[in-house]
Parts: sequence; C-alpha cells; structure tokens
Amino acid sequence: MTTDRQARGTLYLVPTPLDHGCEHQAPLADVLPQGTIAVAARLSHWISENAKSTRAFLKRVDALVPLAQPVQALQIQELPRQIHKQGDHRPTGGWDARPLLAAALQGQDMGLVSEAGMPAVADPGSSVVRAAHELGIAVQPLVGPVSLMLALAASGLNGQNFAFVGYLPQDASTRAARIRELERLARDSGQSQLFIETPYRNAALLQALLRQLKPDTRLAICSGLTLAPGCCTSLRVSDWRQRTPPLATDAAAQPAVFAIGP
Amino acid sequence: MTTDRQARGTLYLVPTPLDHGCEHQAPLADVLPQGTIAVAARLSHWISENAKSTRAFLKRVDALVPLAQPVQALQIQELPRQIHKQGDHRPTGGWDARPLLAAALQGQDMGLVSEAGMPAVADPGSSVVRAAHELGIAVQPLVGPVSLMLALAASGLNGQNFAFVGYLPQDASTRAARIRELERLARDSGQSQLFIETPYRNAALLQALLRQLKPDTRLAICSGLTLAPGCCTSLRVSDWRQRTPPLATDAAAQPAVFAIGP
Repeated sequence: MTTDRQARGTLYLVPTPLDHGCEHQAPLADVLPQGTIAVAARLSHWISENAKSTRAFLKRVDALVPLAQPVQALQIQELPRQIHKQGDHRPTGGWDARPLLAAALQGQDMGLVSEAGMPAVADPGSSVVRAAHELGIAVQPLVGPVSLMLALAASGLNGQNFAFVGYLPQDASTRAARIRELERLARDSGQSQLFIETPYRNAALLQALLRQLKPDTRLAICSGLTLAPGCCTSLRVSDWRQRTPPLATDAAAQPAVFAIGP
Repeated sequence: MTTDRQARGTLYLVPTPLDHGCEHQAPLADVLPQGTIAVAARLSHWISENAKSTRAFLKRVDALVPLAQPVQALQIQELPRQIHKQGDHRPTGGWDARPLLAAALQGQDMGLVSEAGMPAVADPGSSVVRAAHELGIAVQPLVGPVSLMLALAASGLNGQNFAFVGYLPQDASTRAARIRELERLARDSGQSQLFIETPYRNAALLQALLRQLKPDTRLAICSGLTLAPGCCTSLRVSDWRQRTPPLATDAAAQPAVFAIGP
C-alpha cells in the first residue's frame, strides 16, 4: 500500500489570480507565493476548468519561473462543461473523474486549476479531488487567493461562524424569499451568509437586498479583491440606502462577493 | 469626505504562516506572496492577537525583505484577551475597537494579524475591521494561507455550498447531538460542514464522530496544511472505522480542520 502510494504522483490544487478577464492584472508575485509558482512551473499534466485560461496563467508563471516544458507541450485536460454550472459535488452525479487522473496513477504529479482562485472552492473540481482520494493519490493544496475569504475578512462580519451558499435564485420572488431566509439565519444564529452573482447582475441583486433586508442588518460587498484599488464596502442596510449610487461603477461590472450578518 | 479618506491610512489584513508553534516551519516565500511580504515589511503600526508571535513573524519577514524599522521600534497593540476565545463578532459586545485605529486616522497604514492564517477568519479581528469601516478607513485584505479553504479544497467535499461552525461543544452528549445535527444539515442541504478542535482533543473528537456519523457520510481531516508532508484524509465513515489507528500520530498532535458532507 505504502509502496503503491509512493509510486503515484501527487495532485496539487493550484490557485490562480482573481483577475481573470479583468482589464488590469496584478503582478503574479503579489498574489501567489513563490512556492506555488515553482510547483506550477514544473507540472506537465493539468486538469483545468478552461484550457485557454490555464495556458494564459502558465505564460504568466513562465515569465517568473521558466516552465519545465513549453506551454504547447503540456497535457491539459478540461473538466466537462456540464459540471461548470450545475456543480460537481453530487456523490452520484454519474460522471466519473477517475480517468482524468491516469497520469497520476502512473507516477506523474498533476495540477488542478480553475479559471480564478482556488479550485474546488466556489468553482468546479471537487469531483476530481474525491476521485484522487478514492485512488490513493495524495492531494496537496497550495496557497493563493480565495476571494470568499478575502471578502469575509474585509467585511468585518463574523468570521468564526459563516456559510457560503453560492448563487441566489434568479426569479424575483423566489430570490426575495431566499434573501429573507438567509437574513433570518444570519440574525438568529450569528452565522454570516456569503453569496455571489454573475457581475452584470450585481446591481440588480443589490437592489433586491436593499428592498428585502432589515435596516440594521450589515451588508458587505467586496470586489476587485487583490487589485488596487480593491473595494470592500461594509455598512448597515440603512446606510446603504443613503448612498447614491449605492454601488460604485467599478463594483457593478466586476466579480463581487456579497455577505450579510447581524 | 474623499479628502478625509485619503488622509487616512489603510488597514491591511496580513495573513501569516500556519506553522505557528509547530516544530517545522515552511519557508516564508513558499506560503506568502512577495506582495504580502513587502507590505508587512513596510508597516510600522500593528494590531495583533499576540505581540510575541507577531514579532517572530516579522523577523521571518525581515530575513527576506528588510523591515522599514527594527522590530523593537514597531508599535504593536494587542487585542484584549477576552475576545480571543469568546469571539469578537457580537455587534454590541461592549468592547470598542476604534481606539486601536488612532494611527490610521492620523494617516498611518496599519496591519492586523492573528497568530496563524487570515485575521478575522476563524480568529479574532473582525471587531477591528468593523471599526475601520465605521471610521472610513479603507480595508485591504492580503493573500496568504487560510487553513479552512486549503482543507475544504483538499477534502473533495462540496465547495460550492459550505459552512464553518467553529468549535463543537465539549460536553459529550451535547457534542453528540451537535454532530448529528450537522450531519443532518450536510445530508439534507448538501452543505459541507467544517469545524475545528484544540489539537490535543483531535483524537477524542474523531472517536465521537465515528460513533455518531452514518457509515456513508464522508469525513475529511486535514492537518499540517502548507507543511510537507501535509495530510488530508477524506473517506467514508465506514472506511475510517477500518483504519488502525484511525488518526495518524502527526494529525493527532497538530491543528486540524474537520469536514463532513454527503
């Protein structure tokens, strides 16, 4: 068993910068430790949410630490499209991630990456990690930016009890009910509730929040995390209602994390 | 207002390595980006969970990027002891963090740090961040290790819906009930449930989990995160029950993150 495991490669979970698709990019060394960059530079086998963005990321790595192989020679396998949106956490989702790990079974170290941030956190990838555990492949997460935790820390909301619930429903009345449910949970248990939205819907979500939430509930919206100037605004709902416009133009167009709490 | 804000300093949330108090330490550059190290090196005003560990951290920074001032000359204010354990998230906790930010009001950039990991996430500090927002001081979180997210990603559990609930109760029967409640929540909603324990109680917590949880619930225990060899074991409870001993000796003595899910 020990011998088997030693003969296998390790699956590295490689975080990437949060500026994917943004106009401005932070220098890679500002947001990734040297240790993470060094591992990314030496891996030749990747499992990726999107091969194109992985190649763009690895070109940024190459500018700091030369890749062991040219980008064109890397093996980059993409996760199937259908798990991007619906999530890949269902234990019996019907999709078998194990074939993606064939190289690791043959002794190659592999990297798992998403488009931005930590793979398998608010992003696809967990099915690959579960498959690695099933196959006896060691899993090593590397340090890098995690937008949810940057936002939670910057919000000033309770970081000792919190939940991330993904996207809220799109239908207006279902969404209103969900907002009230999350507020009740946050106020009754003290558990901060974090959620996200597709950027072009940020302004509409904020409007819905300001309509539904109680005046003394605290609402934080953090965007442009790791970018300068990043922006985290954390106010009581009554104070948000005084702002004109409530959301800065920057935040309206960027990926943002929303959080509410007492 | 804009002028006022520009005259104020920024509150940087400075993550630190996870190896506080551990026998082995990772090289700082392996776990902190150059950008985080550079900011830490230039700050002269700190708000800290523990001044001694902050000085030890800054000596490691100094070895890579010379500090703008000698460690002895830095102003390090400690958070009051009573909020360490009970948490500082209560909006009306009676404690006013604003005086700690006096230097920022006078234009100095300041750093907030905990003993290990991200301040204000599973650690004290959120009251200081809330006070900064109240005073119109910009808050900038920096990238570094967050044990909860490293563990969540490495667990293979659902990272698109999850909660961190802190410590479980110490009393055996209350704890057993809480374990069953968290399992019900995880199985009914698909929301992964994360929690932590004081290291010397890890083995006892694992015993309680193996007694209470259903055989097909998935349980992950991750310790030594960012250290080599770190260890994340993620198995069905029925498979955990086969292991002898269930917890590796390493994990039994180290800070660990526990997670359960379907």
